[in-house]
Amino acid sequence: MTKYGFLGLGIMGRAMASNLVKAGFEVSVWNRTPNKCAPLVEMGARQAGSPREVAATCDITFAMLADPAAATAVVLGPDGVQAGIGDGRGYVDMSTVDAETSAAIETAIRQAGGRFLEAPVSGTKKPAEDGTLIILAAGDQSLYEQALSAFDKMGKLSPYLGETGQAAHMKLVVNMIMGGMMTAFCEGLSLGQKSGLDGQQILDIFMAGALANPMFAGKGAMILQGKYPTSFPLQHMQKDLRLAIALGDKFAQPLSSAAAANETFKRARQLGLSDEDFAAVFKAIDGKR
Amino acid sequence: MTKYGFLGLGIMGRAMASNLVKAGFEVSVWNRTPNKCAPLVEMGARQAGSPREVAATCDITFAMLADPAAATAVVLGPDGVQAGIGDGRGYVDMSTVDAETSAAIETAIRQAGGRFLEAPVSGTKKPAEDGTLIILAAGDQSLYEQALSAFDKMGKLSPYLGETGQAAHMKLVVNMIMGGMMTAFCEGLSLGQKSGLDGQQILDIFMAGALANPMFAGKGAMILQGKYPTSFPLQHMQKDLRLAIALGDKFAQPLSSAAAANETFKRARQLGLSDEDFAAVFKAIDGKR
Amino acid sequence: MTKYGFLGLGIMGRAMASNLVKAGFEVSVWNRTPNKCAPLVEMGARQAGSPREVAATCDITFAMLADPAAATAVVLGPDGVQAGIGDGRGYVDMSTVDAETSAAIETAIRQAGGRFLEAPVSGTKKPAEDGTLIILAAGDQSLYEQALSAFDKMGKLSPYLGETGQAAHMKLVVNMIMGGMMTAFCEGLSLGQKSGLDGQQILDIFMAGALANPMFAGKGAMILQGKYPTSFPLQHMQKDLRLAIALGDKFAQPLSSAAAANETFKRARQLGLSDEDFAAVFKAIDGKR
Amino acid sequence: MTKYGFLGLGIMGRAMASNLVKAGFEVSVWNRTPNKCAPLVEMGARQAGSPREVAATCDITFAMLADPAAATAVVLGPDGVQAGIGDGRGYVDMSTVDAETSAAIETAIRQAGGRFLEAPVSGTKKPAEDGTLIILAAGDQSLYEQALSAFDKMGKLSPYLGETGQAAHMKLVVNMIMGGMMTAFCEGLSLGQKSGLDGQQILDIFMAGALANPMFAGKGAMILQGKYPTSFPLQHMQKDLRLAIALGDKFAQPLSSAAAANETFKRARQLGLSDEDFAAVFKAIDGKR
Repeated sequence: MTKYGFLGLGIMGRAMASNLVKAGFEVSVWNRTPNKCAPLVEMGARQAGSPREVAATCDITFAMLADPAAATAVVLGPDGVQAGIGDGRGYVDMSTVDAETSAAIETAIRQAGGRFLEAPVSGTKKPAEDGTLIILAAGDQSLYEQALSAFDKMGKLSPYLGETGQAAHMKLVVNMIMGGMMTAFCEGLSLGQKSGLDGQQILDIFMAGALANPMFAGKGAMILQGKYPTSFPLQHMQKDLRLAIALGDKFAQPLSSAAAANETFKRARQLGLSDEDFAAVFKAIDGKR
Repeated sequence: MTKYGFLGLGIMGRAMASNLVKAGFEVSVWNRTPNKCAPLVEMGARQAGSPREVAATCDITFAMLADPAAATAVVLGPDGVQAGIGDGRGYVDMSTVDAETSAAIETAIRQAGGRFLEAPVSGTKKPAEDGTLIILAAGDQSLYEQALSAFDKMGKLSPYLGETGQAAHMKLVVNMIMGGMMTAFCEGLSLGQKSGLDGQQILDIFMAGALANPMFAGKGAMILQGKYPTSFPLQHMQKDLRLAIALGDKFAQPLSSAAAANETFKRARQLGLSDEDFAAVFKAIDGKR
Repeated sequence: MTKYGFLGLGIMGRAMASNLVKAGFEVSVWNRTPNKCAPLVEMGARQAGSPREVAATCDITFAMLADPAAATAVVLGPDGVQAGIGDGRGYVDMSTVDAETSAAIETAIRQAGGRFLEAPVSGTKKPAEDGTLIILAAGDQSLYEQALSAFDKMGKLSPYLGETGQAAHMKLVVNMIMGGMMTAFCEGLSLGQKSGLDGQQILDIFMAGALANPMFAGKGAMILQGKYPTSFPLQHMQKDLRLAIALGDKFAQPLSSAAAANETFKRARQLGLSDEDFAAVFKAIDGKR
Repeated sequence: MTKYGFLGLGIMGRAMASNLVKAGFEVSVWNRTPNKCAPLVEMGARQAGSPREVAATCDITFAMLADPAAATAVVLGPDGVQAGIGDGRGYVDMSTVDAETSAAIETAIRQAGGRFLEAPVSGTKKPAEDGTLIILAAGDQSLYEQALSAFDKMGKLSPYLGETGQAAHMKLVVNMIMGGMMTAFCEGLSLGQKSGLDGQQILDIFMAGALANPMFAGKGAMILQGKYPTSFPLQHMQKDLRLAIALGDKFAQPLSSAAAANETFKRARQLGLSDEDFAAVFKAIDGKR
């Protein structure tokens, strides 16, 4: 029977590891603050003393860490994964990290004789608990196939996207479309209201048709209320647009809509909206401040 | 009991009138080719000899005609609605016509002593049959309120949008957003595929998330197959973008994303794609022809 | 010897008519306020009592009037050109009027048996006095050829552009390029200053190179001083961009740069800069207000 | 009397060094291929055996080298400038190199006790011979002031732009404006011709007005002839637009026109025009290929 490890039991990791344990899998867990392991152990998991120990004793070790620094430390630090992995055992990093961090971790794992897969997820606490995350996997394909039965417990969709780096590209593509949809949506809301239409009616009609989507429902309500509690910061959206356009540059791919959206998000930054939710781009478009 | 009239029994009109008859309403019908009235009469409708007769004997007369010419002829032509309407009786034009046609019909109806409402619909055959159209109503508000119980049988949503012309504005706003969403979507698909991602996987991931919407599902499949059977002609989308931008001009409303989309659709026209479905804008973006 | 008429002796017309008289041509002049004719009569011109009289007695009648209303009145009003022209005599309207006015005047002239040429000019008082205007001629080609020796005294360049309306198209093309150059210039100045460069140095370097042009010299100084005395109102530039883009629409000609410039000028209007000089678009770009 | 050195006697360097010698300055020259020194020596220059020797014996050493590799080798290679400079003597690199190369050279010079100035030039063979280059200087200000009398012999304008790196920023700003002007110009030419105007007449009218500039004169002729011999490669213009936009990103500076131009140049790359002159962007706009 395959032995699974899980490093990092924050809000997301704890929910994801729980789904593995509940499925009846044999799971070893580790967390920097050890007492966070207790609930998992109660459910039947085994607690390990270090990332090294997990990597040395499990066939596949999953990691879900807070940021690039934590993701790096767990692999390269003392008693880290690098010291334990080997003999083709697998390491699957599900944290959201930049391409450089991912590449550095991959190199460390492979030099130690392990296999590597990057598998950042889309979705927050609820989908993590429900096992309905979207898992974007890229890297070692044999490891992907071996990890699929575990992915199936944690997510509703877990495509294999190709070599390391392709998961990041997929995220850029999705976020670029999201940014373009948002500026189109805000321009429509602004134009409609200026021409005398009621904002709520515009939303209602929109949501009754073929363009209806959960994002517009949520962000539309924010815009009509004029409050932008941050879920995805505006400056991060602008950064992703910039990176997507830079990716297009490599392939001589014109991206006029994305470029226009990018400039509009930059204007929003110029107006001081960097840390608000990216739906606050509405204010830069509408011009009423 | 309110007496309803219905002029025009094409694919849409027949389905809509049927829903009124099925609801137990008293309905007089007329069609230019009289034998198309037969199925409705069989269901319980009364057949009238002319638009004039319908307008003279019904409290509210609905019309669903093929184009501006037909919509105009039925009102201003011999034995037309204008000759029969009066005493505050209502005329509700549900055809899709331009602002000038709508204004001309409104003038004729009001001069004859009737009340006027423009109420173009969003949705095709199936929603017409199911009574789930979206009805965009604008014009005489008292007539709107009187017509609501009939609208409820034909549509799932029938907001009152204000004075005559506002229904057309709403359509422009919705189509402008749709055009912007489409160029963003195509740019994403094109960029993703060029960077080595699989088109179907991009779609799958998209459809599993907060941006999922029926339009992208349908058009995405068309794009991946490279076939663009025309449902909404590309040149009509470009025309709507142009009109929406012209509307924005009145209010000094910048619409950068819509403008970028408009230019991209114009490039598609330049490439000879005017009569294909508007999703064919993908070809202009992707550059492979 | 060809007899010339000249209607309208404002700042521009007086200078232009003077150049004809100085050249030794036989010139009849008329002005709504008759005493403005005195200086011309002193130089050798003949004063006429009405536009009709001028048109009836001259081979070619030039007109330089303040606005479309005046241009129309002089032709269609009592004792107007229409009543005097005929037998193939020529009428050359050098006023700046819209396409509709120009077409209405052309129709009136042709119905009365005259020939028509539109010939709006580019240039202000000084070039008018120096005989160095740019004259954009369109309409009756035989009249153009007959008028050339007079044009040569008033302007330095007077191309024949084709049928009536083409002079207006030429103006749109030139102004569209001017609008695009201005936004590019302002973006450069703004970016340069934000990255720590000195505005005057940017201008100096610019003016020493292959991109140097009189417009940037003049407008650049305005921008650095932050004062925008109106020479060409911003809202007129935006209107011309809109009309140029609409012209492109006819030919399915994408105009991405013009469209981006148009949206930027609209943003300037949104910020209340409509009546300032069009160089004030800098403020909308720079974001410091 | 100040002693000057000059490294690199290619087409540009030879002309520049000649102007220093002709001015009566004491100049030591060096070239990788020594026999290229002969004409300078004939004029009165002193020939040195190595970059080290020049740097050790001259107060200010100028360098004009072919590319970043040559510029680096002359400083860091055997018998290089680094080994000879010191005691506050000056090194002025007039080659066009990237920011990284410039920074590396600066570090080497300063560590050896020298002062550094970057001073890339704008202009080609003829201005180099005529002493009318534009010299963009940035770095050590005391060295700039000391070098001014030599700059005056080589160029017509040699502003001091601030710390190292600002010369590169100035070039980006100028090229960004140039790129935006070019797309505006091409759109105007394309629109005008499609609406029936004559291309040469558009150019003539343009060149007679306030927008006239040498670049449009030269490139306009290329466009009308449909031939694009490469003077500034299209892909380099697109690269500069990309870098300028990236610079704007740092300051949250929206650059809508530059972004639109960038996408248009990318489309030109997509169409295979990368290596043609950047005026060939006309083909991507006009759509006739």
